[in-house]
Amino acid sequence: MSADIIPLMRRQDDAPPTLDPMLQITAAGMNSVNTVILDRMQSEIPLIPRLAGHLISGGGKRLRPMLTLAGAELVGYQGNRHHKLAAAVEFIHTATLLHDDVVDGSELRRGKAAANIIFGNPATVLVGDFLFSRAFELMTEDGSLRVLKILSSASAIIAEGEVAQLSAQRKIETSEERYLDIIGAKTAALFAAASRISAVVAECDDSQERALDDYGRNLGVAFQLVDDAIDYDSDTAEMGKDRGDDFREGKMTLPVILAFARGTAEEREFWKAAISGHRSSDEDLDHAIRLIAKHDCVEATRERARHFAQRAADALSIFPDSKARSAMVEAAQFAVARGY
Amino acid sequence: MSADIIPLMRRQDDAPPTLDPMLQITAAGMNSVNTVILDRMQSEIPLIPRLAGHLISGGGKRLRPMLTLAGAELVGYQGNRHHKLAAAVEFIHTATLLHDDVVDGSELRRGKAAANIIFGNPATVLVGDFLFSRAFELMTEDGSLRVLKILSSASAIIAEGEVAQLSAQRKIETSEERYLDIIGAKTAALFAAASRISAVVAECDDSQERALDDYGRNLGVAFQLVDDAIDYDSDTAEMGKDRGDDFREGKMTLPVILAFARGTAEEREFWKAAISGHRSSDEDLDHAIRLIAKHDCVEATRERARHFAQRAADALSIFPDSKARSAMVEAAQFAVARGY
Repeated sequence: MSADIIPLMRRQDDAPPTLDPMLQITAAGMNSVNTVILDRMQSEIPLIPRLAGHLISGGGKRLRPMLTLAGAELVGYQGNRHHKLAAAVEFIHTATLLHDDVVDGSELRRGKAAANIIFGNPATVLVGDFLFSRAFELMTEDGSLRVLKILSSASAIIAEGEVAQLSAQRKIETSEERYLDIIGAKTAALFAAASRISAVVAECDDSQERALDDYGRNLGVAFQLVDDAIDYDSDTAEMGKDRGDDFREGKMTLPVILAFARGTAEEREFWKAAISGHRSSDEDLDHAIRLIAKHDCVEATRERARHFAQRAADALSIFPDSKARSAMVEAAQFAVARGY
Repeated sequence: MSADIIPLMRRQDDAPPTLDPMLQITAAGMNSVNTVILDRMQSEIPLIPRLAGHLISGGGKRLRPMLTLAGAELVGYQGNRHHKLAAAVEFIHTATLLHDDVVDGSELRRGKAAANIIFGNPATVLVGDFLFSRAFELMTEDGSLRVLKILSSASAIIAEGEVAQLSAQRKIETSEERYLDIIGAKTAALFAAASRISAVVAECDDSQERALDDYGRNLGVAFQLVDDAIDYDSDTAEMGKDRGDDFREGKMTLPVILAFARGTAEEREFWKAAISGHRSSDEDLDHAIRLIAKHDCVEATRERARHFAQRAADALSIFPDSKARSAMVEAAQFAVARGY
């Protein structure tokens, strides 16, 4: 660990790390991105902007397009091509969220009723398709085949990751390695692509492009790990996501994988029953949270996240120190510290 | 009508028109396309090729990629770039079929159990996304931004058409004009794009590119009209599609729109009840078919199809006569004659 170069710890004033510096360096650009998003989600079919707007104006952090903007800032890119591309990234993300909600039968998303609950599964699937197509229209307008390659390949990998997750659902034997493969595909691939394309538009050299890819990928893994930890964290207030969704759906996330691995024979029987769907009551969820706490599995998951966040931060060491780099490092710290 | 140039009628030997000449001129190319399709639907996640293969090997006509190949033949294109692009077209089509089956809750597709019935809605949505992403990967590998623009724009229009169809569902007041807009988007846009891109790879001039677009678009409308007619044709045997699906789903297709327009006050009451979902039994379907027959609405729908098929054929008049042109004209005749 090159902790003396880029320390992944609380800031010196000991305030918890936040996304604020990242928000600050990308604020002007994000206004342009938001304009593109609002403009390009329009359609003569009124249901499309209504449904898309429900999710898009629903208070997401827009972290992925922000990565594109922060990366561009980091490498000193002076143009504005990345605004359209960042909007394309957000459209791909929004499309996958809409399809995820259908796939999972979610009831809540970001603390509001999920689109599928309000508009039904059919419209939700189709508006996802629309946004996905729009994303490729935006990229085509930009005209970079390298960006198109990066994002079309990321999109295929995301879909593969989602199918792999579906195949692992209700399978107690899912390993940590398998889980890391899955979140690497379903979550981190788009973080990596979003970050990488900033280097492409800025015509950076290969090592810079790879560094930004590494930063995004590791950051994505850290974010997903902490998301999955929060779902079982006994200390955390409700996070907008429907608490216990992962449990009821029999999703094999790291807290469960570790609790099963560390559990007694009796506890393992509980996990088998729970993940296969035979114990999914609120009391069962409480019991699951207690077992996960007993074996420190939330903290262990956060520790894994810390590892990936550190790798994200260190990947940036090839760039000279700058406001943008500090902001991106703090975003990695924030990824881990969320929900404490 | 330039009927003396390109007659849209039975062939001189009075045999019914078939797709055979089109199959013949595209046979060699379609082998290459099929190889690309089988190769590129693979994934390390076994569920993906299994689910995709269920539909892809399920006996579709592969009409859309065939249009790309026929167009290339028509304009004398000598390369093989169009094989990958035709596969991309088929992937987009397959993705929309998979999503359609989820949207409609279909039970049958091409006479077999629909993918959603065998593999469930979640996997079906996600494999659709995968194929859609793969389509864009294939186009990106080809590297033509013009093709990317044509197909990303067509994809967005297809999704808009599907949402518009959903919005029109169970709405008895849907007009013929609205219906034509919907099928122009959900079906004909991809036919037009598939046909057009052959001219793009062959670097044809604008008028040839537009002619191939017009051919595909009008052909697509004709095909969809006849599909919709067959669903209510009292003379037709089961067509693989779940007979009466459109009726039970309250879809406003042209036979219903015309039967409502031509119906008595009493018949209109029946249609209102039926389309709003209050009369959807097998007896109600039989009654609907009788009313549609009474007002000749299947034949009227076919007549509309004949009009568009004629426009498709005439669009090709700027090309010199050739085996390819005859095959494409006969395909338009076939579109109308199907199911007789």
